[in-house]
Amino acid sequence: MKLCRVGPRGQERPALLDAEGRLRDLSGLVREIDGEALSVRRLAEIAAIPLASLPLIPGRPRYGAPVAGTSKFVCIGLNYSEHAAEAGLAVPSEPIVFLKAPSAICGPDDDTVQPLHSTRLDWEVELGVVIGSVARNVAEAEALDAVAGYCVLNDVSERAFQMQSSQWDKGKGCDSFGPTGPWLVTRDEVPDPQALRLWLSVNGRRMQDGSTRTMIFGVREIISYVSRYMTLLPGDIIATGTPAGVGMGLKPDPVWLQPGDVVELGIEGLGSQRQVVVPHRSENAG
Amino acid sequence: MKLCRVGPRGQERPALLDAEGRLRDLSGLVREIDGEALSVRRLAEIAAIPLASLPLIPGRPRYGAPVAGTSKFVCIGLNYSEHAAEAGLAVPSEPIVFLKAPSAICGPDDDTVQPLHSTRLDWEVELGVVIGSVARNVAEAEALDAVAGYCVLNDVSERAFQMQSSQWDKGKGCDSFGPTGPWLVTRDEVPDPQALRLWLSVNGRRMQDGSTRTMIFGVREIISYVSRYMTLLPGDIIATGTPAGVGMGLKPDPVWLQPGDVVELGIEGLGSQRQVVVPHRSENAG
Repeated sequence: MKLCRVGPRGQERPALLDAEGRLRDLSGLVREIDGEALSVRRLAEIAAIPLASLPLIPGRPRYGAPVAGTSKFVCIGLNYSEHAAEAGLAVPSEPIVFLKAPSAICGPDDDTVQPLHSTRLDWEVELGVVIGSVARNVAEAEALDAVAGYCVLNDVSERAFQMQSSQWDKGKGCDSFGPTGPWLVTRDEVPDPQALRLWLSVNGRRMQDGSTRTMIFGVREIISYVSRYMTLLPGDIIATGTPAGVGMGLKPDPVWLQPGDVVELGIEGLGSQRQVVVPHRSENAG
Repeated sequence: MKLCRVGPRGQERPALLDAEGRLRDLSGLVREIDGEALSVRRLAEIAAIPLASLPLIPGRPRYGAPVAGTSKFVCIGLNYSEHAAEAGLAVPSEPIVFLKAPSAICGPDDDTVQPLHSTRLDWEVELGVVIGSVARNVAEAEALDAVAGYCVLNDVSERAFQMQSSQWDKGKGCDSFGPTGPWLVTRDEVPDPQALRLWLSVNGRRMQDGSTRTMIFGVREIISYVSRYMTLLPGDIIATGTPAGVGMGLKPDPVWLQPGDVVELGIEGLGSQRQVVVPHRSENAG
């Protein structure tokens, strides 16, 4: 299934994409696409519904992030060797874990707001893993059982903020830095999460073009590893790292996003995103 | 007011400490002590209730964390110069921002569970700031308006995990690493958050004894700074850093917590906590 949340920001309703690509309203069935709705039992209940019985949603509503109520947005740093090389950093011997503020999460096509004093705004296409059941000290062999599904993520990063201190979270957690979706594609539709092509373009120019096959630590290993340190909860999201081709790594000079730039990205089978970079607006100028 | 949540884990109900130190049940008035209940308007409504009209809660129930639904647990690293020195690190020129996993949050007297493979378990008493209203790019002069209240925090840290990669979050976010409370003391009862004594003892031996007066970046500055990067939401918590005296910094050798150790800590006017360190238990061993 392709689950999503559509409607104006803060008023999204749960929906599902049918085989013809039409949006079907799920709000009669679930209140939200959140941790509770992502349990094996609830997903099976949703899957059992005849799609034709669900009302069609007319028009082309905005997509919100496909999951609500995410409590942890866990990120794995430098998880593709060519990206580690372009960042000038060593290939890690264990997954590098950091956290992105959940307040950064937004819809897949929402504007990317350049923060005040931002000078080095960058992109990172990533495979997102959405957790469906509580995972604590899970073995790699059972790790995928905890997965509800997968989604496209852009781990938008402000490199000056990220590198200003030793800790990256500040440059990763700004508002609008977590475009997620359009869909949560349930696990049954993604037989091998390590065989997905992922790509990103800026103003029509292809910047990233990789495959999850070249991750240093695969999805099973990441889930098992993180779950040794912190219990993963339904609705939590893990961003699994980005392949080569971010702005920071370009030669001869890095390239930073500017207002007006258009970022498009996607993952095979998981859909695509499109963001326009806009300048920061003060609250008063609103 | 001193707001709190009492009862078994996951079944806490909202309560309030009256002038005689008795617990009064707030569940007839608010569903939860969460972001919604912490608005200026809701806090004023609670404050207007005659306490005698609220049912007494008998016995000595467990305290949970005083706030539910925290979406961001923001931490400020090395925010006391003597602690930066004992950690062997430079005094920062700007606040060092990192995030603690909200799944680490627990009650003030809950056991501290030593994670699997933990070898360097440490303590950090900190002043916690609980956000009551949305704060985005707030000026220092208005920063305290966004505060609902203050609480005691222990920023429990596993130094081997924290220092294993460049990113600290893994060693800060383990389950049970965020004892919070016992109370959220509303802002009106804390006229100067920069004049609070804070202390921590291990097995009765005083290890930390400081004052929020010696913070490098004060509460106003921290809120203003963080709000430039990420919107602070009602219910979010900021841990403002720890004074000198953590186990990592002890001479001639560091001291790490072991199962059976008892950690007690408190802050002037905000109450105290007591944790017993217990070994990790596998899920099966229950």
